[in-house]
Amino acid sequence: MSRRARTIAEVGEFGFLARLLPTLRDGRGVILGPGDDCAVVQSDAARLLFTVDALVERVHFRAGWLTPRQLGRKAFLVNASDIAAMGGAPRWCVVHLAAPPQAPSADLSAICRGIAAAAAGVGASLVGGNLSRARELSVTVALVGVAPRRPLTRSGARPGDLLYVTGALGEAALGVRALARDRTAGGPAVRRFRTPPLRLRAGALLARCGWASAMIDVSDGLVADLGHLCAASRVGARVVLERVPCSPRVHRAGVSLALTGGEDYELLCAVPARHRRRVERLATRFGCPFTCIGECRPARDGLQVVGATGAAVSLSATGHDHFARRPG
Amino acid sequence: MSRRARTIAEVGEFGFLARLLPTLRDGRGVILGPGDDCAVVQSDAARLLFTVDALVERVHFRAGWLTPRQLGRKAFLVNASDIAAMGGAPRWCVVHLAAPPQAPSADLSAICRGIAAAAAGVGASLVGGNLSRARELSVTVALVGVAPRRPLTRSGARPGDLLYVTGALGEAALGVRALARDRTAGGPAVRRFRTPPLRLRAGALLARCGWASAMIDVSDGLVADLGHLCAASRVGARVVLERVPCSPRVHRAGVSLALTGGEDYELLCAVPARHRRRVERLATRFGCPFTCIGECRPARDGLQVVGATGAAVSLSATGHDHFARRPG
Repeated sequence: MSRRARTIAEVGEFGFLARLLPTLRDGRGVILGPGDDCAVVQSDAARLLFTVDALVERVHFRAGWLTPRQLGRKAFLVNASDIAAMGGAPRWCVVHLAAPPQAPSADLSAICRGIAAAAAGVGASLVGGNLSRARELSVTVALVGVAPRRPLTRSGARPGDLLYVTGALGEAALGVRALARDRTAGGPAVRRFRTPPLRLRAGALLARCGWASAMIDVSDGLVADLGHLCAASRVGARVVLERVPCSPRVHRAGVSLALTGGEDYELLCAVPARHRRRVERLATRFGCPFTCIGECRPARDGLQVVGATGAAVSLSATGHDHFARRPG
Repeated sequence: MSRRARTIAEVGEFGFLARLLPTLRDGRGVILGPGDDCAVVQSDAARLLFTVDALVERVHFRAGWLTPRQLGRKAFLVNASDIAAMGGAPRWCVVHLAAPPQAPSADLSAICRGIAAAAAGVGASLVGGNLSRARELSVTVALVGVAPRRPLTRSGARPGDLLYVTGALGEAALGVRALARDRTAGGPAVRRFRTPPLRLRAGALLARCGWASAMIDVSDGLVADLGHLCAASRVGARVVLERVPCSPRVHRAGVSLALTGGEDYELLCAVPARHRRRVERLATRFGCPFTCIGECRPARDGLQVVGATGAAVSLSATGHDHFARRPG
């Protein structure tokens, strides 16, 4: 006898919660976890970070691209990446799940458990949530973290500051391309799309050392997010294409993936040139590459990507705008 | 020459934010407001409350039922109601807006300004947000508040405790009924649907006095939320139908609106009978009625609604399940 998976409409909002809640464990500083009107948490720091981000079906992923658990994990990670970009530590999150009535209840539980497991992996916890009906599946996570003494913002870069990026770029966009062709695709690029990196250690060390002047996470593509950093800092920038770290796979597929692909979740930061040696020594503790890709320029220079010879490279797309593009 | 409103797809995510952000003002404890990877806030209390809630088109409202500004305000108020139900004070919120590409950009700005204005009205502020494409409009707000010394949970009620409710019930559900018939409907019931009450003062006084044993906000209907309080407290309850506060309008339309209509956003609390006189004296400072509607019973009695003679009243619906019902 085969059993059909029960839908969330059959189980109901309250039935769903009654089953899910006992499986979630309380974490650090959690006085009262999910299940009441609010969570109650105890903060050991007065200065907090607060951010929100969502993964929406047909915008950020398509059916079958991620398992429910992977989707939950990724929803946490993309939020935690914003905390990393300020140099903080994630602490407590809440989730709003919107799902069609025919969604299997077990899938929605798996999303929540994916969030909770990813949070627990970095000393944070899922403390509350909410469920409602919608035409398409979406997972919205709001995350509170502990701020470092001096949070790194997008707005402190000055002309002459060097631009560094953690890890490598373009891999996740290559994974999206593979999944769009074949949703059963595998391999490192697909894995990278499913599980973005989380540069908490690099972010925290960069905020603590006091040498970086500005930081942002690369979620919309290097060019777009560098554009945000430049706009906030009122500077221009010049990136040397050959220095942008990407795998041979991404290189073969087209380096524009590394410039405008999006979904990288690496950190991009500006460091005054006088701190170059010190910050590169510090970077040996990041647990990932840390590559100088160019420098900040006066605002009038705008944002240029140049080849090794200094010739400008034309950019066909400037980044990820969720209203302009779709996955696949 | 008439100008067509520009859509969010035309303005773009970043263009939208560039226009909206300068119009938002920073509030109490806000070190860094919207526009960076995270907001940075400074808390004057170590113990915080954290909650999330969403208003989704076709689930919580239909097109034309609320202006964009009213929708933003309501999205804040329903979250703040959860903070009120623990006895806390709302402080900072973030919003995730999901909208179809053809949504007018000005409408989405108005939603955000509605949130910000409602927050400012109670000493809180909108500190961040995110925008993504979706098939239907939804507004998800996550809210952090300051907890009272002893937050009131759902789980402290004991058999014999008296049950009180603030304000009056059923009006908003009557408003939903009117709007479902005619989306241009007006009047007090529709106004009540559009602008739920926010019982912060009653909640804070009830938490501070130490006399209430449990509290919840009535968002899914009295019977459903009393059911949650009873389940968490492991008690039963008996409500006397004639004591349930509702307007003559609601009474004429059917008292089931007051029992199971939902959208009331009043507070329901349990108070040991020995504190009856003191809590009723305190309630003169709530700024709204505070009515004893029944009492907690042993768990084996379940949840009963009785007439003045003590005869049980049958309940046709037990509350609001978003997967089972639709507005209209």
